[in-house]
Amino acid sequence: MEGDPFQLSTEVADALAGGRPVVALESTIISHGLPRPRNHKAALEFEQLLRDQGVTPATIAVLDGVPQIGLDADGVRRIAEDELAKASVRDLPILAALGRSGATTVAATAHLASLAGIRVFATGGLGGVHRGAAETFDESADLPTLAENPVTVVSAGVKSVLDIGATLERLETLSVPVIGYRTTAFPAFWLRESGFELDWKVDSAEQVAAVMAARDARGSRTGIVLANPIPLEQQWDPAEHDRVLRTAFAAAEEAGVRGKAVTPFLLGYVVDASGAGASRSTSISPATTCGSLPRSRSPGRASRR
Amino acid sequence: MEGDPFQLSTEVADALAGGRPVVALESTIISHGLPRPRNHKAALEFEQLLRDQGVTPATIAVLDGVPQIGLDADGVRRIAEDELAKASVRDLPILAALGRSGATTVAATAHLASLAGIRVFATGGLGGVHRGAAETFDESADLPTLAENPVTVVSAGVKSVLDIGATLERLETLSVPVIGYRTTAFPAFWLRESGFELDWKVDSAEQVAAVMAARDARGSRTGIVLANPIPLEQQWDPAEHDRVLRTAFAAAEEAGVRGKAVTPFLLGYVVDASGAGASRSTSISPATTCGSLPRSRSPGRASRR
Amino acid sequence: MEGDPFQLSTEVADALAGGRPVVALESTIISHGLPRPRNHKAALEFEQLLRDQGVTPATIAVLDGVPQIGLDADGVRRIAEDELAKASVRDLPILAALGRSGATTVAATAHLASLAGIRVFATGGLGGVHRGAAETFDESADLPTLAENPVTVVSAGVKSVLDIGATLERLETLSVPVIGYRTTAFPAFWLRESGFELDWKVDSAEQVAAVMAARDARGSRTGIVLANPIPLEQQWDPAEHDRVLRTAFAAAEEAGVRGKAVTPFLLGYVVDASGAGASRSTSISPATTCGSLPRSRSPGRASRR
Ligand SMILES: [Mn+2]
Ligand SMILES: [Mn+2]
Ligand SMILES: [Mn+2]
Repeated sequence: MEGDPFQLSTEVADALAGGRPVVALESTIISHGLPRPRNHKAALEFEQLLRDQGVTPATIAVLDGVPQIGLDADGVRRIAEDELAKASVRDLPILAALGRSGATTVAATAHLASLAGIRVFATGGLGGVHRGAAETFDESADLPTLAENPVTVVSAGVKSVLDIGATLERLETLSVPVIGYRTTAFPAFWLRESGFELDWKVDSAEQVAAVMAARDARGSRTGIVLANPIPLEQQWDPAEHDRVLRTAFAAAEEAGVRGKAVTPFLLGYVVDASGAGASRSTSISPATTCGSLPRSRSPGRASRR
Repeated sequence: MEGDPFQLSTEVADALAGGRPVVALESTIISHGLPRPRNHKAALEFEQLLRDQGVTPATIAVLDGVPQIGLDADGVRRIAEDELAKASVRDLPILAALGRSGATTVAATAHLASLAGIRVFATGGLGGVHRGAAETFDESADLPTLAENPVTVVSAGVKSVLDIGATLERLETLSVPVIGYRTTAFPAFWLRESGFELDWKVDSAEQVAAVMAARDARGSRTGIVLANPIPLEQQWDPAEHDRVLRTAFAAAEEAGVRGKAVTPFLLGYVVDASGAGASRSTSISPATTCGSLPRSRSPGRASRR
Repeated sequence: MEGDPFQLSTEVADALAGGRPVVALESTIISHGLPRPRNHKAALEFEQLLRDQGVTPATIAVLDGVPQIGLDADGVRRIAEDELAKASVRDLPILAALGRSGATTVAATAHLASLAGIRVFATGGLGGVHRGAAETFDESADLPTLAENPVTVVSAGVKSVLDIGATLERLETLSVPVIGYRTTAFPAFWLRESGFELDWKVDSAEQVAAVMAARDARGSRTGIVLANPIPLEQQWDPAEHDRVLRTAFAAAEEAGVRGKAVTPFLLGYVVDASGAGASRSTSISPATTCGSLPRSRSPGRASRR
């Protein structure tokens, strides 16, 4: 009844079999994070940026119940044009049983990449602890999922509409390493610096690969967060960012927005207020970092080399 | 010194070996949730309701240190009449070492059912995040346990003395699917609707089985929460429920009840105030839902069919 | 590139191979918990106290990237004299990749002991939930780590600068058994009683071994917290303790200390104010309890006996 747990595209299957680098990409950023029709173009650009670096992209989504690891042209079109549910890890068996489609979140993408033996995943911003979570308990499934899936997630940090400090604490509690790429300043997606400092940085893809190999050698299945700030010339002006965020908080307060509604409200407000800024910053990271990152291999082979 | 990790009753062992449906039942609801001597009668009724549907009941409890999966007549009598400790998962090795008895909570029942290869467990109300947990950190072990044991827990939801919203958030963070049975309204045990909406519903036992099979196919060990509201004619009058709960909160406030004492205080108050209502609602769910639910099998055999 | 996941000392390897008792010791207490040069002397004393009981000590630290299970004389000197980073579980692959050294926390020590097949670990105070964690989310990685590593951690409880109640709740939620050694009063490191009561106590090392064996028989990988209060004659005067703590809270308030800075501030204040008291109390536990505790064996052999 359920079919295979996932379907590899021919391109991704060949790259994995040949030991060539593969980087996973999520689909929620395409289906829910960017306006149409720009999102379709962005999905193709993300893939091309990786191909330009000699990396096979594996965009992940659930189509008609089956998780697809690597999409063909029609698959990319569907995640950009269809009305897809957001699919986290816990939605996968339901989508499979009902034959439904879904755009995979960071959690579901990391989980499926890991199942398929892909070891690096590039995304924009990581999910985390929401502001007000002490009351709402609203914390992204991204965090516990990263504690259990041996994937290195390269991102531009955590958006400042979330509670970045609490998110970093949760990652520490869950024993997920957070490493800066050529910096110890943890980035805030639109900004190169969030004000939170990291204990560790690495300066090369080889060092990341060495951390991954050491994790594998210990038999650990923990993911790794690699924080790669956007280039300085792309970052939002920090003073402007802070001003918009303050206005967004005030607007949420005034509108009486509470609980789970706060993050979407803030995010919508910030995107509206930032104009081209926000869209510019969504084109981050896959290209700049991942081309030189360690090659994806099946976990078995990666544990000793 | 420790003996076997659990003891199957002949009836349950035969049913599992023969691939016939088995549904686990907890014992805490009998020993701590219902007044004597009605609780003894209720335990027997719960089992009979399942048998009437062609399902073998596996009431679970720890007797003299040994987890029993399926109780004989004397076992049922003991959980109803003896003074038993509440046994969560972490108490199992202690009870075993000390040769003590205990009534298993939702967490311990789900864990032991899963160990024994039983895949469906029917209970009344799920444990969750307690009101005030931001301060007390009082959260039921039911929640993380469901994230790690591949059992489908059929319940009438979460009692409104708990923080239902926070409980649903925790389940989301822990990647535990929560599915409504023929409804997207998450129920509140005494009521068919808690005010919280679910993303998914299923309309048949076959769909539940398909979700479980898809979960197994992916190699996942996560449990599933299936929310099955009590029949409309059995539900407490919502206006009356809300009034009693408000009075209960006020009484707790006035009495200066704090921390871990809040939930038992509220629960006691509500049960006293609701008279027959509360006891009526404890006879829910096993019969109505589970007879038609997917058959319990050993996890190995269930993963492909 | 990464080398072996850990290095056993000859002494520890021989003891494990011969089925003789081994107890793990952490290094953070030496490198960060005690003033120099007393800390070097203390490290040697801890080991000697165990040897006097016929137990092989396995002090654990990461030296030049490699986790060492059991230190030679130069290793003990290094953890006492070198400037070492604190190494939690998530730092291990980074230290390995970068060839760096680190003093292992309770979490990292429990994890490495478990990997090496050592089943008992003695420490002073357990990490936990920090005061104000509802806001900061600052919770020690010790707690989830204990949920996943089958090591019995013997300690004198949790320091009262932490939120002891919330820590005990977290351990309950995570299904980690907490057992008192000859008491049901959970201790507060400097004091024999924290005001929090436990459900269970054991009266002998044989009972602890029976709990561990029952846990193993069930296939569980959960750690066990064994709380062993310091001897009455060593405890800090409770009235004096409470007075100092109150003053410390007031000082933190007045100094405007917030978030993650609170615990170090309180701890520093308490240590300063308690004079010899604090240092006296750090020499607790390894000797008094562990000599008579169950022998460390490889997990495979320990599961049936
Ligand atoms: Mn959420
Ligand atoms: Mn509790
Ligand atoms: Mn911390």
